[in-house]
Amino acid sequence: MTGLLLTNAAIATMGNGLSTGGAPYGLVNRGALAIEGGRIKWVGLTEEADAFPDFERRDLDGRLVTPALIDCHTHLVYGGHRAWEFEMRLKGATYEEVARAGGGIVSTVQSTRGASEQTLIDAALPRLDAMIGEGVATVEIKSGYGLDIETELTMLRAARRLAELRPVRVKTTFLGAHATPAEYKGSPEAYLKEVCLPALDAAAEERLVDAVDGFCEGIAFTPDQIAMVFARAALHHLPVKLHAEQLSNIGGARLAARHGALSADHLEYADAGDAAALAAAGTVAVLLPGAFYTIHETRRPPIDAFREAGVAMALATDCNPGSSPLASILLAMNMGCTLFHMTPEEALAGATRNAARALGLTDAGVVAPGMRADLALWDVEHPAELAYRIGFNALHERIFAGAET
Amino acid sequence: MTGLLLTNAAIATMGNGLSTGGAPYGLVNRGALAIEGGRIKWVGLTEEADAFPDFERRDLDGRLVTPALIDCHTHLVYGGHRAWEFEMRLKGATYEEVARAGGGIVSTVQSTRGASEQTLIDAALPRLDAMIGEGVATVEIKSGYGLDIETELTMLRAARRLAELRPVRVKTTFLGAHATPAEYKGSPEAYLKEVCLPALDAAAEERLVDAVDGFCEGIAFTPDQIAMVFARAALHHLPVKLHAEQLSNIGGARLAARHGALSADHLEYADAGDAAALAAAGTVAVLLPGAFYTIHETRRPPIDAFREAGVAMALATDCNPGSSPLASILLAMNMGCTLFHMTPEEALAGATRNAARALGLTDAGVVAPGMRADLALWDVEHPAELAYRIGFNALHERIFAGAET
Ligand SMILES: [Zn+2]
Ligand SMILES: [Zn+2]
Repeated sequence: MTGLLLTNAAIATMGNGLSTGGAPYGLVNRGALAIEGGRIKWVGLTEEADAFPDFERRDLDGRLVTPALIDCHTHLVYGGHRAWEFEMRLKGATYEEVARAGGGIVSTVQSTRGASEQTLIDAALPRLDAMIGEGVATVEIKSGYGLDIETELTMLRAARRLAELRPVRVKTTFLGAHATPAEYKGSPEAYLKEVCLPALDAAAEERLVDAVDGFCEGIAFTPDQIAMVFARAALHHLPVKLHAEQLSNIGGARLAARHGALSADHLEYADAGDAAALAAAGTVAVLLPGAFYTIHETRRPPIDAFREAGVAMALATDCNPGSSPLASILLAMNMGCTLFHMTPEEALAGATRNAARALGLTDAGVVAPGMRADLALWDVEHPAELAYRIGFNALHERIFAGAET
Repeated sequence: MTGLLLTNAAIATMGNGLSTGGAPYGLVNRGALAIEGGRIKWVGLTEEADAFPDFERRDLDGRLVTPALIDCHTHLVYGGHRAWEFEMRLKGATYEEVARAGGGIVSTVQSTRGASEQTLIDAALPRLDAMIGEGVATVEIKSGYGLDIETELTMLRAARRLAELRPVRVKTTFLGAHATPAEYKGSPEAYLKEVCLPALDAAAEERLVDAVDGFCEGIAFTPDQIAMVFARAALHHLPVKLHAEQLSNIGGARLAARHGALSADHLEYADAGDAAALAAAGTVAVLLPGAFYTIHETRRPPIDAFREAGVAMALATDCNPGSSPLASILLAMNMGCTLFHMTPEEALAGATRNAARALGLTDAGVVAPGMRADLALWDVEHPAELAYRIGFNALHERIFAGAET
């Protein structure tokens, strides 16, 4: 099989700026790139592309090329939905009334436990297809709505299976420490010891887990409890990440940094000290504006502190049935700009280069030789348009591992 | 040509509740509807559908049917885009710096004047296609970026032409009173007399205008100036509508009500007195959460006052290159709920029944005998899901004037 040579492209390489003279977005105008064996072989100028005479040559007519997008924080696999709860609240019901009616995460746990692996897959596919349709080539998917051993495994198996059903890469995250289920109410440590850790052992044994996550919050688990889960992850040589500082600051970000976490996620209540800790540990700040928007949060994550400390920022949908029923990474990018005041370049880096880092990937998220040929081709003039437009998908075509899909 | 009979549908008729026993959304479960000659002939229960034996019968398998969506306030036709301005502001530029760099509406006027009718059409089509892809069958399109006679006409011709290029109905609105162009700076009345009114005369003469709009605001035109435009509209027997009370309250809503306007739009700064005036006049309140979101407005339109007064509320994208680069009516519905605290049922009425009223249409926006057979079929269980999901399009199929498109 011969290679593919894309010419006459505006390539937003999202590289570190050294190879592209520090141009914003690592932009290479009149760029070209050679693809072979599913990998990027060469990136340069169209006028220098003579070295690949036997490659299939395709003129992109000036079209923008970016790394394929990466959604690095989703709860894509779940049973049911919570539209009735959304409606109930907007009709004036209090949170207590919604809870009494079976709302909240309890509702999704019940629907997920009641679903077969196939039912979970069928429900997740339209959401996954929406993401692929926006140029996503890698999506992270968490467990955490089973909260019993068997359903946690079923969720992860469904997530793995999705990558066989669609041209997309799935990174799985074990999130047994998402909430304490009703049957362990008031006994979170018993839940962790009797269910969560054994579920992690079983899932790791079955090779269903790429990373381990938890929800560190007043309404979920304490830093000490999360540390117990992280210790078990270390036994399995699995990297960790953490839902931290979403509703209050209880030390989750520092805990994540201490454990060298890939990412700390949400972070609305993080402070400058947390930013310094994340920077020192090389932990990515994953920002989730869809949840901020949906729950009417008013405190923004400390973007300026992250910038000053040099924390890499990623953006993701947090796609879930309760606090962020968002399936559009492009909209997450717009929200990152409009709600969090990130720049369009930071937003695009957040859905490419830094999202890759948040997943521990070193083969995606930038356009450079040796990287996977996961690319997105866009009908826009300038990369800033991707975050500027709202509810508009300018994807022209997606290339997955070198193949047009 | 024989008729079409859709059976086994969940029909959110969005009717007035009388014919459906007052069920939310006018919902008819196990519903059926007969279509003939592009119109709805009959709506009822599947078990009563025997009266149409020679109609082509299609079982919808319980799928949700709603009226096709209507986007009743857009500036869909324009030249250029303003991503660079979006980026400049997020990089810290002040409004003054952006203005000095040629930003703001001036930029779009310049790009629009420099574009041919065909260029405007080519630029608008992807936005229009995005809307059609979400089940929109009727879209309103305003002029207002020409601000000279010839370009205002060109914009309206482009809008009319879009309805020939795609299976969609376009309602055009003349918005010459959008802003005072640079060449008339400081002389808004001279602009209105020398350009805006003659442009309206010419456009009406060419039958390019379905309604007349204006921007009543401290930074645009006073109520007295708008009244002059409305008087000219009356000469042409054209209905009026108004951008009112978006940034301050200067009496635009009351002016609109006094002139029996089809709609008053934006209305963040309207008050209970305005609500009473709109209700008495039967003027629809068109709410535009995309602009609220983009310009970081913090004052919400007085939804409770509108409810109490009985003002019909519509929702629209306000699709425009500056304050609302939003092309998704589904997202406008979600924003109506999340940002304005409307209920999902109000949001759907806002994009169907009440949007039709805002355009003066009596043949669309509800599923009832005699109406146009403009329908949307959705892969959801319940109509509340349409506003609940964010950045997700559950459209299964659109039917336009009885034809599957
Ligand atoms: Zn999450
Ligand atoms: Zn407008």
